[in-house]
Amino acid sequence: MRVVKEAAERRNEILDAAEELFVTKGYDKTSTNDILDKVKIARGTLYYHFKSKEDILNAMIDRINSSLIARAEAVAKDKSVPIVERIVMTISSLRVNTDIGNEIITLVHKPQNALMHQKMQKSLVEGVLPILTDLVNEGNKEGIFDVKYPKETTEMLILYSTIAFDDDYDESPESSKKRIIAFLINTERLLGAKEGSLQKTMMKLFN
Amino acid sequence: MRVVKEAAERRNEILDAAEELFVTKGYDKTSTNDILDKVKIARGTLYYHFKSKEDILNAMIDRINSSLIARAEAVAKDKSVPIVERIVMTISSLRVNTDIGNEIITLVHKPQNALMHQKMQKSLVEGVLPILTDLVNEGNKEGIFDVKYPKETTEMLILYSTIAFDDDYDESPESSKKRIIAFLINTERLLGAKEGSLQKTMMKLFN
Repeated sequence: MRVVKEAAERRNEILDAAEELFVTKGYDKTSTNDILDKVKIARGTLYYHFKSKEDILNAMIDRINSSLIARAEAVAKDKSVPIVERIVMTISSLRVNTDIGNEIITLVHKPQNALMHQKMQKSLVEGVLPILTDLVNEGNKEGIFDVKYPKETTEMLILYSTIAFDDDYDESPESSKKRIIAFLINTERLLGAKEGSLQKTMMKLFN
Repeated sequence: MRVVKEAAERRNEILDAAEELFVTKGYDKTSTNDILDKVKIARGTLYYHFKSKEDILNAMIDRINSSLIARAEAVAKDKSVPIVERIVMTISSLRVNTDIGNEIITLVHKPQNALMHQKMQKSLVEGVLPILTDLVNEGNKEGIFDVKYPKETTEMLILYSTIAFDDDYDESPESSKKRIIAFLINTERLLGAKEGSLQKTMMKLFN
């Protein structure tokens, strides 16, 4: 057992060092040599854990996604908060707000990283879908929602958001604002929620 | 003017030849030499029109998208057909159903072509959005829809469809069927259409 724990620790050490380098030097300018120097390990040890720099980046994305999902789950489970608020806060909690998060967001938006971007979003959607579906089911039970297909409807809302509110969706500030208002109204309709209930919650939480 | 016309013709000839080769030999196994042999032109002429084999593929995608959009527009403008039927038929008309179309669909679903896939979908969405928005506006005027933000709502429906009903969205046949039914119900809600009206139209058109 001891060896296994050490391997996991070593792996995290490499990821920590790589994260710091990616943020300070940038991903492109960081070499695997830089990472070796920083963690003070031999090349063989690095390759035992990761096949390539890209492999490290993928592991980093998984780590960020896991922590976002864990944060979302904690928010979603706090039953002292009304459901509509919890839904809004759960979705907001998915916004990346660390240095390494921002660096990786910039990276995956480069054209050559389109596949990585897709994978990152897919894994995030898969992680958050059951959490939000549970909230929609709760709302159905409370009688504030009326959704026949909770999982599919939640999926529709999430998938649309990941594209339409992605940072590289080019548009003017006005059309962006209009899209947000339309999304809130449309979400109310899809959830069978009272007209204006979601918009009211947004105003309360963010104004 | 004569030279311009000839250039456009030559360009189309190259695309036609490349299409045939991509379908019969496959994209990966087709070389630019194969294309030169088929069109009987010099390498310089090819490079005057296209930078690379990938550039040819991109032009091919544009040509297919343009013809899909033109087909969709023709269907959408036929006012003798009821609006809900026209919407369903306009969307159905976007399905690729030629040999070259299928070959390209297979190509863009390869992991290394993720960016091309994204671009192809984006250009198709941008082309069909105004056509479907017009239909939603018509439905509003007729009083069979009640949509406050026609463009944004139409965009939501299209963007979701392009992901959820894309061939590489892995799922079982049962969950695929459930997703389609949920999508029809949700579309009725978003359009403010009579419950069951869209489902009835689908049954009528496809059963």
